[in-house]
Amino acid sequence: KQYRIAVIPGDGIGKEVMPEGLRVLEAAAKKHDVSVHFDHFDFSSYDYYEKHGQMMPDDWKEKIGKHDAIYFGAVGWPAKIPDHVSLWGSLIKFRREFDQYVNLRPVRLMPGVPSPLAGRKPGDIDFWVVRENTEGEYSSVGGRMFPDTDREFVTQQTVMTRTGVDRILKFAFELAQSRPKKHLTSATKSNGISITMPYWDERVEAMAKKFPGVKWDKYHIDILTANFVLHPDWFDVVVGSNLFGDILSDLGPACTGTIGIAPSGNINPEGDFPSVFEPVHGSAPDIAGQGIANPIGMIWSGAMMFEHLGEKEAGKSIVDAIERTLAERTLRTKDLGGNADTTACGKAVADMVD
Amino acid sequence: KQYRIAVIPGDGIGKEVMPEGLRVLEAAAKKHDVSVHFDHFDFSSYDYYEKHGQMMPDDWKEKIGKHDAIYFGAVGWPAKIPDHVSLWGSLIKFRREFDQYVNLRPVRLMPGVPSPLAGRKPGDIDFWVVRENTEGEYSSVGGRMFPDTDREFVTQQTVMTRTGVDRILKFAFELAQSRPKKHLTSATKSNGISITMPYWDERVEAMAKKFPGVKWDKYHIDILTANFVLHPDWFDVVVGSNLFGDILSDLGPACTGTIGIAPSGNINPEGDFPSVFEPVHGSAPDIAGQGIANPIGMIWSGAMMFEHLGEKEAGKSIVDAIERTLAERTLRTKDLGGNADTTACGKAVADMVD
Ligand SMILES: CC(C)[C@H](C(=O)O)[C@@H](O)C(=O)O
Ligand SMILES: CC(C)[C@H](C(=O)O)[C@@H](O)C(=O)O
Repeated sequence: KQYRIAVIPGDGIGKEVMPEGLRVLEAAAKKHDVSVHFDHFDFSSYDYYEKHGQMMPDDWKEKIGKHDAIYFGAVGWPAKIPDHVSLWGSLIKFRREFDQYVNLRPVRLMPGVPSPLAGRKPGDIDFWVVRENTEGEYSSVGGRMFPDTDREFVTQQTVMTRTGVDRILKFAFELAQSRPKKHLTSATKSNGISITMPYWDERVEAMAKKFPGVKWDKYHIDILTANFVLHPDWFDVVVGSNLFGDILSDLGPACTGTIGIAPSGNINPEGDFPSVFEPVHGSAPDIAGQGIANPIGMIWSGAMMFEHLGEKEAGKSIVDAIERTLAERTLRTKDLGGNADTTACGKAVADMVD
Repeated sequence: KQYRIAVIPGDGIGKEVMPEGLRVLEAAAKKHDVSVHFDHFDFSSYDYYEKHGQMMPDDWKEKIGKHDAIYFGAVGWPAKIPDHVSLWGSLIKFRREFDQYVNLRPVRLMPGVPSPLAGRKPGDIDFWVVRENTEGEYSSVGGRMFPDTDREFVTQQTVMTRTGVDRILKFAFELAQSRPKKHLTSATKSNGISITMPYWDERVEAMAKKFPGVKWDKYHIDILTANFVLHPDWFDVVVGSNLFGDILSDLGPACTGTIGIAPSGNINPEGDFPSVFEPVHGSAPDIAGQGIANPIGMIWSGAMMFEHLGEKEAGKSIVDAIERTLAERTLRTKDLGGNADTTACGKAVADMVD
């Protein structure tokens, strides 16, 4: 079968790292006999917005909804276009309308990337953050009353549905079950957020009964963030609500040295819609156009995409190539103390793929 | 004037660290000619709950509402009494009914306390987290619909009032203005939480206009937690909503080595009600009764209490004594690699006060 991938570079350094991501995917596809076809799209970018007054064409769903996956660079250019237009007009639209209810990110300390945590070595930190990606704290239900008076107030609801909570927990428990440690940690705050979070805990307990082989525990989000720093070796699979997962999946990569190389998947596990794979970093206007951006996040996201498509070997060959590349100082980009530019780093990974 | 302090040891190690807190307060009071009277209360504890079926007497407000401050150990014994009974029946009641709308915690790397962050030394990390303590995400507004069916869902509102937001921001800007760096950082998530958080940003901007001498910036909570780990030296005063402040004020102390020594104040700045000073650690059932708990969090909270009462010199003398004590391995408790027990550590600090 031939995979059809929608390619959306987006803004800023998204455009610079995308060619390297594609280069490595092509190298891995060749070695592992995977047939891929890439379709390129210019929407979901500031340039497109400037021309058309919207982030995406009206028929964006027809254009990319039948692809096997979407390979996405970065979107957003806060100085030119407000976040709620650019992000809610693309990224969050994908998540909602393609029902990508899993946001998946590895937290893994790689060779050549110094951890800000004292004494931690590659191998010490290796877990996954599973984030609910469609509901929870990111609802749009709420409003403002008594505007511009002393009585002014705003409210916004957190919404958790049984469907929404159970399916993300099921995904997380299944992932935990597939791993050697079989350990799941749930992020909660039921001692302070007294309605939604106890419900989350309740559903975790119910789901845990279906996975007797998985050991599980829960921490309140405050002490959990502390434990990411103090005991990152405690974790295997960490599951959280939209907001908690968002926090943990930036904090986790920071603990492994840099969010500059972290990948992510926005996944619809049933495959009813395409999933989006994108680096965690944004468009980084401050370094865009200089050719120095680190392409590893983009490349690693490609590896996750191949794994999601079922091409485990091709995916793994990319992750291995990333590790070997990062281990060589001269092949790393400037942000990691090396002197390679974006292209040189991307080529190095492509060459290492086997 | 004689200060009247309500003393509530609470549960678990709260009872063990309280005598050391009092010992040091008495030593500092003597040296600095401060007159203090302590009234002891046994409520807000599991023992009290077991006898009376509630955490506090009906007239708790009359009993402690006229004191100049409340010196609080720790409450909660999750195996025996659910959090929502113990915490909401005492700690959170104080915050709400005594309108302690500021939760204040220092984040400071102390000598003798190894930071989990590589290469950070005492002096490198020194900032305050200012947390809104009465509203926000900790509302009790919400509920459940369609229970026990597939359509089941729960909602909970975040509530931000103009009064509530403005007064915490004012406190934070004033604190920033009083410090050498005059720098304030606001925690937001307005790119994802689309109603309450943009409102928070709006009020920050309005308040900033009244403090032209203060430099300010804002970060989304996800990248802010990452920056606590990667760049803790960037911060001076960090202000956040109830939930964001809760997270940051556990993560911050974790970055400085341990939440075991962190102090906190739950403050009603106007002095209409007493403020509560308590260590950040909980009742720690796992080590309770062994006499090994670290009393520094309790002692440091006492220093904050003196400063709040206007006894700056007495407060500072305690913080200095803590630093000198922590610098000596033999005077530290086991959790910090020393061999002192709770009492020996407390006595050491009391002796150092000058
Ligand atoms: C015990 C809990 C309700 C409390 C909170 O979240 O406010 C605690 O974490 C704190 O920070 O004082
Ligand atoms: C850009 C923003 C809305 C987004 C989020 O909070 O979901 C981002 O932080 C992410 O994690 O993908």
